[in-house]
Amino acid sequence: MKTLLLTKEDVKGLISMAEVIGTVEEAYKAFNSGLVQQPGYMGLHLPAPRGEIDFKAGYNQANETITLKASSGGFPHNPAEHGVPSGMGTVLLFDARSCVLACVMDGSLLTGLRTGASGAVSVKALARKDARTVAVIGTGNQARMQIRAIREVMTIGEIHAWCRTPEKLAAFKDEIEQAFGIPVTAASCARDAVAAADILITATRGTGPVVEAGWVKPGTHIIAIGTDQHGKQEFEPEIFRGARIVVDSLSQCISKGETWHPLNAGIITQEQIHGEIGEILLGHKPGRERDDEITIFDSTGMAIQDNTAARKIYDNAVARNAGTWFSFFQ
Amino acid sequence: MKTLLLTKEDVKGLISMAEVIGTVEEAYKAFNSGLVQQPGYMGLHLPAPRGEIDFKAGYNQANETITLKASSGGFPHNPAEHGVPSGMGTVLLFDARSCVLACVMDGSLLTGLRTGASGAVSVKALARKDARTVAVIGTGNQARMQIRAIREVMTIGEIHAWCRTPEKLAAFKDEIEQAFGIPVTAASCARDAVAAADILITATRGTGPVVEAGWVKPGTHIIAIGTDQHGKQEFEPEIFRGARIVVDSLSQCISKGETWHPLNAGIITQEQIHGEIGEILLGHKPGRERDDEITIFDSTGMAIQDNTAARKIYDNAVARNAGTWFSFFQ
Repeated sequence: MKTLLLTKEDVKGLISMAEVIGTVEEAYKAFNSGLVQQPGYMGLHLPAPRGEIDFKAGYNQANETITLKASSGGFPHNPAEHGVPSGMGTVLLFDARSCVLACVMDGSLLTGLRTGASGAVSVKALARKDARTVAVIGTGNQARMQIRAIREVMTIGEIHAWCRTPEKLAAFKDEIEQAFGIPVTAASCARDAVAAADILITATRGTGPVVEAGWVKPGTHIIAIGTDQHGKQEFEPEIFRGARIVVDSLSQCISKGETWHPLNAGIITQEQIHGEIGEILLGHKPGRERDDEITIFDSTGMAIQDNTAARKIYDNAVARNAGTWFSFFQ
Repeated sequence: MKTLLLTKEDVKGLISMAEVIGTVEEAYKAFNSGLVQQPGYMGLHLPAPRGEIDFKAGYNQANETITLKASSGGFPHNPAEHGVPSGMGTVLLFDARSCVLACVMDGSLLTGLRTGASGAVSVKALARKDARTVAVIGTGNQARMQIRAIREVMTIGEIHAWCRTPEKLAAFKDEIEQAFGIPVTAASCARDAVAAADILITATRGTGPVVEAGWVKPGTHIIAIGTDQHGKQEFEPEIFRGARIVVDSLSQCISKGETWHPLNAGIITQEQIHGEIGEILLGHKPGRERDDEITIFDSTGMAIQDNTAARKIYDNAVARNAGTWFSFFQ
């Protein structure tokens, strides 16, 4: 029995963003085809100032793969005291036909990649076909990933960006312009960025509304990334009134996504949520229907996105003879 | 950042049963000292005839170690179709100070070892000091592990064994007599074995009572191993009436251990459960108090037993320069 070991460097070279987008579509479709098991995650909270480690598992009958992802985060003293990042990740990939451990891969890059791809998948399903201006609130790693993915599925004419820290905003502008040749306007306030948007991405660690309802112009597609647990919030809940609301997982989004806020405030009812994105990808429900409607995609992240992306990385590694093989038993 | 890889063969040579017993005591004590986090496990059920894979995680503040154990089982076609056992296991061990992945080890042996050790720990705390005859119902791998562990903590004068299959019973007798030089009586019925016991071990896959209340003589210590989920049962619930009942985890045993049956039948109340074994090991509650009382240890198995045992294996490997180091990232 042989297990493939893939380092962070291996993983980096083994999957393109276009491939990640394909695997995330595959994940959403499998989820809404009843082919997925994703039990509630296990979380361990370390004593302060340390953060936490979470374990997420998923079984996908479509690819007969089981994955377990361990993700740590919030260890601020790691770089100085232990010489490692403040968060790390590991993925175990099992062949579901036998439960053989097929692969152990570094998981540091996986969450960022598959979360970035989720926004791009929603753009294909929900944004106006003539959308060209992207606004991004937040300029961290996930904001970069969103841009990197969305440019695979549309031509971005210009980007309007905003974050609270001017130095980070300037660095983001420089990086994106150099990497992709897309002009970036460093907005002087969140409102200016939002008002320019055909597509609005929020990828902050916000714990209260950053975007107000009156700022968003008709026809905007919103990608709400930041809110994936209780206590987080990026939007004034009023934005959801009358919008076409699409979620990755209904059960997750109504309990801990951005969608929880307008539900809790009584601004929308659960029946007013249009559906899960997999239903649109499968053709079971329509995507955008009018140019002037506001569409919202609430992405909380699912284990099954890790599953399909990790499986693609593994398949590419096998095809390209990458990685290191190890026998845990004879 | 370096991660230690340990094969099944490595693990086998890296820990003695006496050490496993020590780590299980350590686990029980940490659990009852408020130093342990063990979230509810995640389970994935594969389509028939395949079985399942479970993920159990534990954080032990006493050794600053986090473990995740993946355990599969119930894949009857694995040997013929895939050339691997019907169940396998993998353990990830993280340094809880940073969440660095310190070790990936084969986990095939771990559950058997730490479950075997649990019975021996209970013997020290609950069996009569003059106990010398052990009865064992069930003659599989776990029955062997129980004997192997108990002989580390007492002198076994003789063993009375019983199982449904005469060939397996004969093989068990031969193996145990040769391995340990302890005379084994192959009992003609379960009752005969039980009636001879100072210490009674049940390690079957029973789904209904195998042992009746009237068979158990006063002063017997019972080690109930087999029942760790709903649908399993080894004892007539009446046995629990008036016995000193000790559990590994109260929440687990009252919901899915052997203890659930007498509770469900109204034979005992939760208040009549004496306590968790860690409370006895810590001296917070007495163990056995009278030679003629029946003591029952209900063992459902805890993630924290994997934690302390895996950490010992890892420490021994580092001390002995065993295993293979691998860098998942630079």
